[in-house]
Amino acid sequence: MSPKLITVIAGVGAGTGAAVARRFAAKYPVVLLARKPENYQPLVDEINGAGGKAIGFSADVGDAASIKNAFAKIEEEFGNDVAAAAAVFNASGGFVRKPFLELSEQEFISSVNTSIHGGFYFSQASLPLLLRGVSSSEHAPSLIFTGATASVKSNAGVSGFATGKFGLRALSSSLAKEFGPKGVHVAHAIIDGVIDIPRTKEWMKDAGPDAKIGADAIADAYWHLHTQPKSAFTWEIDIRPFVEKW
Amino acid sequence: MSPKLITVIAGVGAGTGAAVARRFAAKYPVVLLARKPENYQPLVDEINGAGGKAIGFSADVGDAASIKNAFAKIEEEFGNDVAAAAAVFNASGGFVRKPFLELSEQEFISSVNTSIHGGFYFSQASLPLLLRGVSSSEHAPSLIFTGATASVKSNAGVSGFATGKFGLRALSSSLAKEFGPKGVHVAHAIIDGVIDIPRTKEWMKDAGPDAKIGADAIADAYWHLHTQPKSAFTWEIDIRPFVEKW
Amino acid sequence: MSPKLITVIAGVGAGTGAAVARRFAAKYPVVLLARKPENYQPLVDEINGAGGKAIGFSADVGDAASIKNAFAKIEEEFGNDVAAAAAVFNASGGFVRKPFLELSEQEFISSVNTSIHGGFYFSQASLPLLLRGVSSSEHAPSLIFTGATASVKSNAGVSGFATGKFGLRALSSSLAKEFGPKGVHVAHAIIDGVIDIPRTKEWMKDAGPDAKIGADAIADAYWHLHTQPKSAFTWEIDIRPFVEKW
Amino acid sequence: MSPKLITVIAGVGAGTGAAVARRFAAKYPVVLLARKPENYQPLVDEINGAGGKAIGFSADVGDAASIKNAFAKIEEEFGNDVAAAAAVFNASGGFVRKPFLELSEQEFISSVNTSIHGGFYFSQASLPLLLRGVSSSEHAPSLIFTGATASVKSNAGVSGFATGKFGLRALSSSLAKEFGPKGVHVAHAIIDGVIDIPRTKEWMKDAGPDAKIGADAIADAYWHLHTQPKSAFTWEIDIRPFVEKW
Repeated sequence: MSPKLITVIAGVGAGTGAAVARRFAAKYPVVLLARKPENYQPLVDEINGAGGKAIGFSADVGDAASIKNAFAKIEEEFGNDVAAAAAVFNASGGFVRKPFLELSEQEFISSVNTSIHGGFYFSQASLPLLLRGVSSSEHAPSLIFTGATASVKSNAGVSGFATGKFGLRALSSSLAKEFGPKGVHVAHAIIDGVIDIPRTKEWMKDAGPDAKIGADAIADAYWHLHTQPKSAFTWEIDIRPFVEKW
Repeated sequence: MSPKLITVIAGVGAGTGAAVARRFAAKYPVVLLARKPENYQPLVDEINGAGGKAIGFSADVGDAASIKNAFAKIEEEFGNDVAAAAAVFNASGGFVRKPFLELSEQEFISSVNTSIHGGFYFSQASLPLLLRGVSSSEHAPSLIFTGATASVKSNAGVSGFATGKFGLRALSSSLAKEFGPKGVHVAHAIIDGVIDIPRTKEWMKDAGPDAKIGADAIADAYWHLHTQPKSAFTWEIDIRPFVEKW
Repeated sequence: MSPKLITVIAGVGAGTGAAVARRFAAKYPVVLLARKPENYQPLVDEINGAGGKAIGFSADVGDAASIKNAFAKIEEEFGNDVAAAAAVFNASGGFVRKPFLELSEQEFISSVNTSIHGGFYFSQASLPLLLRGVSSSEHAPSLIFTGATASVKSNAGVSGFATGKFGLRALSSSLAKEFGPKGVHVAHAIIDGVIDIPRTKEWMKDAGPDAKIGADAIADAYWHLHTQPKSAFTWEIDIRPFVEKW
Repeated sequence: MSPKLITVIAGVGAGTGAAVARRFAAKYPVVLLARKPENYQPLVDEINGAGGKAIGFSADVGDAASIKNAFAKIEEEFGNDVAAAAAVFNASGGFVRKPFLELSEQEFISSVNTSIHGGFYFSQASLPLLLRGVSSSEHAPSLIFTGATASVKSNAGVSGFATGKFGLRALSSSLAKEFGPKGVHVAHAIIDGVIDIPRTKEWMKDAGPDAKIGADAIADAYWHLHTQPKSAFTWEIDIRPFVEKW
């Protein structure tokens, strides 16, 4: 019998992660990783209540032991032949905008730690599951990273965030070239704008409707990436509202 | 009554153009432009025979008068309030690989002429139709340009092709920023690999199946771009076979 | 006897071209090409008066015959074994900022014509002279292209200028890869800011001193590029005032 | 009296760091930082013996306390009003080429640690000295980062090295934009090729002379960057041998 195919998502809050979870839950059991249960539990309940299957584990992506522990729990739950159809790295370090000489070491490093160390731990933990899915998954198993404007443009005052995001982009490119030929589709999405979530409700009100990115539209794009056949993999896609200045 | 919404495709042969035409014909009447009737007529017949609506006109994209003439015929056919849901610029100059000092002026310029002059004439002719479609089209009217590896990488021996493709990419970026806020979605696709068509059948046979890009998968990606909502436009996407070295 | 080594500069006005001419005239006879004698003659007189050697020819870089004619005059003047130590393409099409649908064909094409056709004609005419200089020139013969912000960033309203500049950058990259191994150093400079010349005297007065680029500093950078040894060629360099937002 | 102006170089071995130290020692006292005294002491002796002034301190750039300690020693040596004319970050993590799933955490992180944490600690320690030099230095105080091919291209098998180098490039870009307007020139050099040092003597012997980058030529480029006036700062320069495929 084929191994069970799951989707693992790291970094689930009110925006992209939740929308992606709902989208992929239509086909796969989804595993949600977030720092605190209050970030994933309502979504787990919502998906299970709607007839899908979801489970959440607390994990700190920047901590090697925490990620290992979470993937051990995935094997406990789904068996140690569990395979992944998709893994989505959507974690993001706290965004700090500050003069460089006023940045504490902690402020700079925490962003790097989430994006770069986190990206590394998550990739090393999920790629074996994705490789295991190559023979049984209808769509090429996909490892998708969420980037930002700061993945390709590093402005004054945001050195920590941009350093982490540039680094994560490099990681995704190297993995795309190594694991593409093995049948795993690695992609990187540059999300260039503000996501439309409750926390951003009061932002950009003057810009009119659709000036913030709909998280569902990002989820649609990730699903499109996931369903691309082996003959036509996209590595990088950018997504921004129609009014965005760039 | 709303204006009729059509799709116009410039550059229709056996590969990308034809696949895009079939995909968009499921929703819109398609207008096919190619240098010679033998390039579009079989596809016109196929689409019409399958219950769609297609029409073809001979046009040389690098010639201002020829493009104007083709769009005049579109208005004759569909009325002068015709609107476009999509316009796809898929024309490509002849690819010449040669030492630079052996290139004739004609060889260099013809590639530039197709990509850059052609891109300009086609954009000036189709954007008024796309703008007219903004209020009535379900999906944001889309102007999609087909690029290549040479859109971002200019190697020795292919200066003419790369110069044209870099230039076309610049045009698409400028138009994306100008017409996005007006509701027209401008996108650029970097097709990085060999398309799987009869003419390339004997190429890369050792690389195994799926080593050439399926034109249908490109059409799916273009359709995904077309259906993105205003809050989540992609400007650039790359597409390559999983085995591609890049 | 070694062939005479000259420097040829296309596009000589009050700014970069003139400063580069003065700088290179300290070592080489310089040939200045510009559309009209009033653009090069004062500089020719100045250089000759200061003990250098300069000569000017009228040429329209976007016109194949005009460039051929200018290079024929160079051979008449210096002999048909004349070799070049450097060739600098500093011509730039008129900068037009306008809504795309209001651009005339002429406005769009003229920028493309100067940058792309001009870059092609000038390269084909000067590369044989540069190759001839490889064995006798102290510094690797250098073909240097002047780019702009618009060489890498294509904003709304400047499609013609950016299309030409992106294309010229592609040309320079292809030539760098082809002619580097033959000993000719091809480089591309992104000049990102306003040049400090009489015509721009009233611009940016609030930004303080040094907010506009000194043409002499560009000439120093070009000279540095020219004197790089074969083991350490730079293809691309950007130059901007310290206050520039980018 | 003006503060004393020094140059600080982190990462001094047989190649770039040593050549840069020799070049800058012609005008400034140089402080050399390296992990072990055997990496800097011979150079310190050489420079002092040749009439310059050099001093070395052991420091591990990836360790915050170690860098703080080294800069405390600089103040002990030169006074706590010491200013810097230049600071060069030339440290590089160990280059590991390995399948991603065989990489140990230590192998991946050590490269990130040197490039990103190291770049951060060095920048925070040296920028106050550079800012102090703005009013007294003949040339704009310069913070120069040494990058590599992997700063802009992330290939299969080198994820750790590329992640660190992409991140360092982001840091340098953010600092360039923040500190340029304050008079400090921040630059990033992409060294694309093998440096010609004793350790690489047997490499690429078939490629002929000048196929490896001369460290002195890199030092000349860094010196050129350092002497650029405020009106013409270069952020990024690439350097490669004329035969390099890229």
